[in-house]
Amino acid sequence: MSKPDTQTPRGRYRAQVREEVKRHAWEQIAAAGASALSLNAIAKQMGMSGPALYRYFASRDELITELIRDAYRSLADTFRARARADAGSKAGAGADLGDLAHALRGWALDDPQRYFLIYGTPVPGYRAPEDTTRTASEIMAVILDACAAAPAGSPGSPASPAEKLPTTHPSPFDAHLDAHRAWAGPHPAPSSALHRALLFWTRLHGVLSLELAGHFAGMGFDPAQLYTAEAEAVMGR
Amino acid sequence: MSKPDTQTPRGRYRAQVREEVKRHAWEQIAAAGASALSLNAIAKQMGMSGPALYRYFASRDELITELIRDAYRSLADTFRARARADAGSKAGAGADLGDLAHALRGWALDDPQRYFLIYGTPVPGYRAPEDTTRTASEIMAVILDACAAAPAGSPGSPASPAEKLPTTHPSPFDAHLDAHRAWAGPHPAPSSALHRALLFWTRLHGVLSLELAGHFAGMGFDPAQLYTAEAEAVMGR
Repeated sequence: MSKPDTQTPRGRYRAQVREEVKRHAWEQIAAAGASALSLNAIAKQMGMSGPALYRYFASRDELITELIRDAYRSLADTFRARARADAGSKAGAGADLGDLAHALRGWALDDPQRYFLIYGTPVPGYRAPEDTTRTASEIMAVILDACAAAPAGSPGSPASPAEKLPTTHPSPFDAHLDAHRAWAGPHPAPSSALHRALLFWTRLHGVLSLELAGHFAGMGFDPAQLYTAEAEAVMGR
Repeated sequence: MSKPDTQTPRGRYRAQVREEVKRHAWEQIAAAGASALSLNAIAKQMGMSGPALYRYFASRDELITELIRDAYRSLADTFRARARADAGSKAGAGADLGDLAHALRGWALDDPQRYFLIYGTPVPGYRAPEDTTRTASEIMAVILDACAAAPAGSPGSPASPAEKLPTTHPSPFDAHLDAHRAWAGPHPAPSSALHRALLFWTRLHGVLSLELAGHFAGMGFDPAQLYTAEAEAVMGR
């Protein structure tokens, strides 16, 4: 019984109300930003008193934590579905990094507010509880699997095939990661794969977040092609 | 007379009040986020009526625009000072890309709110007027100068010197940029330099924004070293 409270009518009603609160919360975030979230305003929209709503979410921060958890969970599910599909169609463990990059962009474009809630400007005054990062670690584990399964080569190699060279020289940052790899847990990936996983995160976030915030609008080039070029650079293709 | 209104006592008083409004606005942004900015709350803090304050800023959006302009202006000044210093100490036009990367990180760490106001989650309902992007273009021009002056090679080459190869093969994205280079204006930089300039922006933003938002906290590695490795990858070193 991992979710005992949805087994009773009272429990199901509670779950329904919480879902409705979250729908209103996303609307508020789209209209006025996460930092302007107001439980009282949501109560008013739902025809409830403030104190009645506080029985479902004890504070604004509890509501934000739930939205962040949902967002991480949704991305983790998207990545794991991709990894399963790749494992079914190809030999070798782990998803294809290019497929994960493509899945990440689709997920972000599908709901930019959700993307920004977890990867955008922090909400002032909000502190995520420790366990919020557990799902973030699951996401990183899928990326690490894919990086460990990727062909050898330096992370961040240039996109042109003519320049691709297999190498055994660890970069200075690889050496640094070798000494600071606790964040990867017991994952056996070599430090070059850890480096690649970080670049998958930072480089794709760099393009995606600027695209979603409208910085490329009017510049004329196709952000999808820049994104693909960066994904290929991370893969060393 | 480009700023005639600071030549009279009335004009100087007006400039002082506007500066004080902006100081309060930055405090509000730090406490509750840019989307929660309230001219009425600022008026109250300053002991003025709302209508009196509206004579200094006609709307929340006008105030946000002024803050964004200040932020871009500050970064442009930082970059240009760096470019001037480099031009004085070295042959060749343009700043050193590594120096610009270092200056960008210092500027961002110095005031993360300012960084996030221009590069973070967009403020819902706010639309920047056309001319806001003029200073952004000045910033890009300094980066383009530095990229055009950088040694030849593919942008995004790996950090290990052993892998560095000069190349004349344009990547598919370089070819795309060649056909979509209006954003660079009349700048004579080749498309590989345009590509490098975009990577300077997206890759450094990727690391910086995740660092400033606290995503690397507790991971153990040094974000400054990841940042330096990415700056070197952009430079092709």
